[in-house]
Amino acid sequence: MRNDLLLKACRREPVPRTPVWFMRQAGRYLPEYRAVRDTVDFLTLCKTPDLAAQVTIQPVDIVGVDAAIIFSDILVVPEAMGMQLVVEEEKGSPTFSSPLRQAPEIGALRIPDPHKELAYVLNAIKAAKEGLWNRVPLIGFSGAPWTLAAYMVEGRGSRDFRHVKQLVYEEPGLAHALLEKLAQSVTMYCRAQVDAGADVIQVFDTWGGLLPKNAFHEFSLRYIQQIVGELKKTGVPVIVFCKDSGHSLTEIAETGADVVGLDWTVDIGEARRMIGDRAALQGNLDPAMLFARPEVIQRGVADILSRFGPGTGHVFNLGHGVLPDTPVEHAKAFVQAVKDLSAKYHQRSFCPEVV
Amino acid sequence: MRNDLLLKACRREPVPRTPVWFMRQAGRYLPEYRAVRDTVDFLTLCKTPDLAAQVTIQPVDIVGVDAAIIFSDILVVPEAMGMQLVVEEEKGSPTFSSPLRQAPEIGALRIPDPHKELAYVLNAIKAAKEGLWNRVPLIGFSGAPWTLAAYMVEGRGSRDFRHVKQLVYEEPGLAHALLEKLAQSVTMYCRAQVDAGADVIQVFDTWGGLLPKNAFHEFSLRYIQQIVGELKKTGVPVIVFCKDSGHSLTEIAETGADVVGLDWTVDIGEARRMIGDRAALQGNLDPAMLFARPEVIQRGVADILSRFGPGTGHVFNLGHGVLPDTPVEHAKAFVQAVKDLSAKYHQRSFCPEVV
Repeated sequence: MRNDLLLKACRREPVPRTPVWFMRQAGRYLPEYRAVRDTVDFLTLCKTPDLAAQVTIQPVDIVGVDAAIIFSDILVVPEAMGMQLVVEEEKGSPTFSSPLRQAPEIGALRIPDPHKELAYVLNAIKAAKEGLWNRVPLIGFSGAPWTLAAYMVEGRGSRDFRHVKQLVYEEPGLAHALLEKLAQSVTMYCRAQVDAGADVIQVFDTWGGLLPKNAFHEFSLRYIQQIVGELKKTGVPVIVFCKDSGHSLTEIAETGADVVGLDWTVDIGEARRMIGDRAALQGNLDPAMLFARPEVIQRGVADILSRFGPGTGHVFNLGHGVLPDTPVEHAKAFVQAVKDLSAKYHQRSFCPEVV
Repeated sequence: MRNDLLLKACRREPVPRTPVWFMRQAGRYLPEYRAVRDTVDFLTLCKTPDLAAQVTIQPVDIVGVDAAIIFSDILVVPEAMGMQLVVEEEKGSPTFSSPLRQAPEIGALRIPDPHKELAYVLNAIKAAKEGLWNRVPLIGFSGAPWTLAAYMVEGRGSRDFRHVKQLVYEEPGLAHALLEKLAQSVTMYCRAQVDAGADVIQVFDTWGGLLPKNAFHEFSLRYIQQIVGELKKTGVPVIVFCKDSGHSLTEIAETGADVVGLDWTVDIGEARRMIGDRAALQGNLDPAMLFARPEVIQRGVADILSRFGPGTGHVFNLGHGVLPDTPVEHAKAFVQAVKDLSAKYHQRSFCPEVV
């Protein structure tokens, strides 16, 4: 691997500067992505390995990030389990036409063989690895069981997630049956991504933070821990990103994750003091800051670097996905700022007092 | 005051049981409220003191809560400052037709005289106090400056709050000028509510948690502290509720608030250990739990009571506003559960090990 900064930072090995990539870096803010999307719908893009690989690689060439992340959607797993995914083109994100509500529907879900039902993702990973020529690592990913369950039960994103919460509160046993199936499916899916060439795996839990803390531990983190435990056997670093879960950073690190992802509300310096050497940290610039002038973005990057402080174990990222209207020049300024400003934090002679 | 449980719990004085009320308790889940709303639009209801007082009192009679909260909307303050509020009946909540974006617009905002531009709220408070006959305390309220600024700059609720964040990140001086005007307006407005008869004031910061922690302190909490400092002079208890701000509970208590409101994601037992005797706590059942069966609601209430533990200093509430489709019988079951299950935590002989 010519640029292995991400792999080293995930393992808290010394690096000459902090690596940077960002969530949804292959996406609508890039004109080159939109040009591809004008020719095919979202799901067709996910399911056409050559096209998915093409948009996966775009931000490496255009924005200069230190890693690629395979272009896909977390909802391909529930689809492979037997649910029907619908794309309403004007609304953007896919939804489920028949949300899960009853025990028989949950019982009917199958645990997919990723080499069959999700072969297109594995083929996209192989194609992306070829196209990348080992320039930078390729990240594979999956939604966490709780986040997938939330979409499957609600049918779509929701304000209050009342249906999936009703399942959890009224029928915890049934909720656990669903989550167990999801954990098995996600584990097999991620292992297959590693076998296909993924160098790192990120597990996304977008909605765990919408549960009370103890329910987050019982219905989300428990299954993430199970998945991380299995994935560790593959030897690739695992990043766990739980949004709105600043109350449980220590517990997230205790899943065994190599890297704990932070949303932008968390103080990364405090997080480092809490987590210590149990895990590296990823994050955490406010994605909305990329609407500000480049000088402001640079100050934001400098602030996070100084909060994290000297030494390795930091993967720079946004605190959530890049917003669709973000100017490309601002995304480039963000990446360049990390490259320019981070090197001094990795010098042996670094002394924070005199910076 | 015949039922002064709320006032005593806010001051951490002994009570025979935990008082309970809930945010948006005068609202759409009540058929009696909907019957009034069928005759007038939302803003007319806010601005007609007799009707506002009538719906304010409804949940005291129907659901049995230990406090009333004046029926109003946080956006009446920006309107009184000179912005035009529009109600799109199908969308529910009011919006601003011309969001604030430029310095001259911010400069043109006036600091309203609550006895003039907001007299209808003060008259509603007087009418509600009369109608309540000192059965339970009446809570007055205001949005926090940051939350009001977010609505004023975005024009409405938002997913990413990019415009108000751009203001904060690119033009912090201008943001502070706006927030300072809002803090003065909110202070005068809350003082006038106390003069009109409000027994407690709650400051709501719905959107502070969408900022990075340090920006939350600089752009939200600083102004809440200023308001609390002024309101303490009136002698009425002040409740500060900041949603999604579990990272800053200690700092919220340090504003001088008598009561710190907790959303449902926080463990109220941990919060009590962190805050100690600096403030009472309010909260924090997940509003979505009111869709579950009454036995489940009772278990949820019991869990929170046991996490808080024995002694005073707890005002039971939901972790955010009651959801519009909540069954009234479930809201009643929630209130009754607090009344039935909390008394033992206030007995002198209480011993948590044997409960």
